[in-house]
Amino acid sequence: MALREVSIIGVGCTPFTQLEGETLKSMATAACLEAIKDAGIERNMVEAFYVGNVLSGMLLGQVTIAPLIVNSLGLNRDIPSTSVEGACGSSSLALREGYMQVATGLCDIVLVAGVEKLTGFPTEKLTQSMTGSLDHEIDGVTGLTFPGFWGLIAMRHMYEHGTTIEQMAMVSVKNHDNSVLNPRARFRNKVDLDTVMNSRLIASPLKLYDCCPISDGASAAILCPAEMAKDYTNKPIDIIGIAQTTGYASLQDQPKQTYLPATVSSAKKAFEMAGLQASDIDVAELHDCFTPAEIVDSEDLGFFEKGKGGQAVEEGLTRVEGKIPINPSGGLLAKGHPVGATGIGQVYEIVRQLQGEHENQVKGAEIGLTHNAGGSGSVCTVTILRRR
Amino acid sequence: MALREVSIIGVGCTPFTQLEGETLKSMATAACLEAIKDAGIERNMVEAFYVGNVLSGMLLGQVTIAPLIVNSLGLNRDIPSTSVEGACGSSSLALREGYMQVATGLCDIVLVAGVEKLTGFPTEKLTQSMTGSLDHEIDGVTGLTFPGFWGLIAMRHMYEHGTTIEQMAMVSVKNHDNSVLNPRARFRNKVDLDTVMNSRLIASPLKLYDCCPISDGASAAILCPAEMAKDYTNKPIDIIGIAQTTGYASLQDQPKQTYLPATVSSAKKAFEMAGLQASDIDVAELHDCFTPAEIVDSEDLGFFEKGKGGQAVEEGLTRVEGKIPINPSGGLLAKGHPVGATGIGQVYEIVRQLQGEHENQVKGAEIGLTHNAGGSGSVCTVTILRRR
Repeated sequence: MALREVSIIGVGCTPFTQLEGETLKSMATAACLEAIKDAGIERNMVEAFYVGNVLSGMLLGQVTIAPLIVNSLGLNRDIPSTSVEGACGSSSLALREGYMQVATGLCDIVLVAGVEKLTGFPTEKLTQSMTGSLDHEIDGVTGLTFPGFWGLIAMRHMYEHGTTIEQMAMVSVKNHDNSVLNPRARFRNKVDLDTVMNSRLIASPLKLYDCCPISDGASAAILCPAEMAKDYTNKPIDIIGIAQTTGYASLQDQPKQTYLPATVSSAKKAFEMAGLQASDIDVAELHDCFTPAEIVDSEDLGFFEKGKGGQAVEEGLTRVEGKIPINPSGGLLAKGHPVGATGIGQVYEIVRQLQGEHENQVKGAEIGLTHNAGGSGSVCTVTILRRR
Repeated sequence: MALREVSIIGVGCTPFTQLEGETLKSMATAACLEAIKDAGIERNMVEAFYVGNVLSGMLLGQVTIAPLIVNSLGLNRDIPSTSVEGACGSSSLALREGYMQVATGLCDIVLVAGVEKLTGFPTEKLTQSMTGSLDHEIDGVTGLTFPGFWGLIAMRHMYEHGTTIEQMAMVSVKNHDNSVLNPRARFRNKVDLDTVMNSRLIASPLKLYDCCPISDGASAAILCPAEMAKDYTNKPIDIIGIAQTTGYASLQDQPKQTYLPATVSSAKKAFEMAGLQASDIDVAELHDCFTPAEIVDSEDLGFFEKGKGGQAVEEGLTRVEGKIPINPSGGLLAKGHPVGATGIGQVYEIVRQLQGEHENQVKGAEIGLTHNAGGSGSVCTVTILRRR
């Protein structure tokens, strides 16, 4: 059965920061209304709604948020509204479900979103909740947390490939440089290498500035068939590759601790679907929850050979003016990481890049990629977007 | 675009009861392996996995369970695995996502499941968690819980339609009569009208036996294109109608407190899709979380006129030998209600009915229906199944 081409005709994204007084509903509603306005559609045209969220139950005691948002937005109530969850990859799952609704002809106009409220909670509660995405029966009982998870991968990557602590720190420096221009970013100040290197140790070898900040925020996108997109916008962005695969649920099960197998498998599928390869990508937003993650991702996606990701950062290849600009938004490290909202937040940044309207524009960007990972890499997604 | 017909070729269901020592993974794995065996497929044939769950985060501190289950089952890891949530309707959402995967041709073989662990927690924690499916900013702050929610609806139904407390109690008596024969049921003892009427008051007018028991459990189903189904089973069950709609997120927003608008809208869509009406249904599993819910559901689905559902119970029309047998499994009231597992659990019961293999068989049943509701009726689904 032939699938229809699918376009993004509108996007919305709140700042990813500490949004005091905002609720899940208010943030999600703001991002969705922005996307609806950006697309120039009427609310009653939305035929299905998917939202990604991870921790509203554990932190706020609120689940079943999809219908709350549909009601808050004033959408038709005779549409399905579904919450999806895949840890920090949740809203990319929402995007993919929406993509399939449109590609298969089940719907013409679909709204997808992500939302998370993470600030204002005691650190211990927050850490416990975030750790809920690891396998509690295996990694969880060891006391492993995500900084520890990525610290272990960093250690092994240094051991096997000679990656240095400085190279990892340079990821943070670059992404903070990028976020200065991004009004949606949590941190808009530059940090120098010394500041990163001398910041407080979190989980060896990772220091404070190697770790992304928890944030509040919401993101949204409107999808429709490519053939209808020009009715709504002069700058539709086409989804030409999209894939989601499953990884190992615990670190100890992985064959090696220097890569995420599900990043590799989802990239393979997304590139095959697009008929492209890594070298065709002009700009990428990768899941840099910790500095070694961006290096590992950049290798797993094929931008650099395995083990060469650290060197690439050192050589400036991933800067905005480099060979493959990575995280010109500031990434999770500096834009922020409201986990369930992050994936469609990445898509927002790439859409604006491909429309030529980003505050930290990559010159002439035509094809962009987002990579979003959840848990122990147990959920990975890759999305490839192209401007018309 | 023409959709393919979709069949259920295998089902699995654990007992819905207190399963001490069982975990989310062990229960989900058991139900999924039963479904895989029932379908006679190999595990590596599964192309996508969806699981419904509501409270693993709040009660167990574990989220992102879809990849945990994929790993535990030994499925291929290059498939997408997605958790969906829509309160007590969660696994029906998983079923519908799986249906769409097969109907649109995206996949041939899909595994869908639901799982929940609810026993062994302090009552207060459990009540708080269950209440997470109401809108915390509206109904939640009033202290409303689900027994209170359905108590209010019962009161209004009595006031408007003359429904009696005895008629509601008769739903419980009937469903306990039914569950005696069901090895998957939590309660396998009959209760008489006096016992129900004299049981402890929970939320006026609802008494203990008007309320379903929380339970542990898991359920699963394997879907494939109808044209392939006979390769795997002599008794495929076709999905001929399936719909999911959104209701009001709080009781006070509803135009009337005597029905669930999303049950009406999802039933309308499912019946239209099947080209059938309520009178064509031979057996139904309805969302009887509380006794008035079964009465309200039976009216909203069109089995009886509005306001006549109580009388229908009194006249025995919903018994196994009646005009429209409702909840021959025992329903949520007596089979049990492991919230995220309930929807596909209902499907399990109807599949066995239509295969002529149910322990409490409705004679000659050819067409069956399930109705699953979540939260304040904010998520409702109706599924219509037919034997070949």
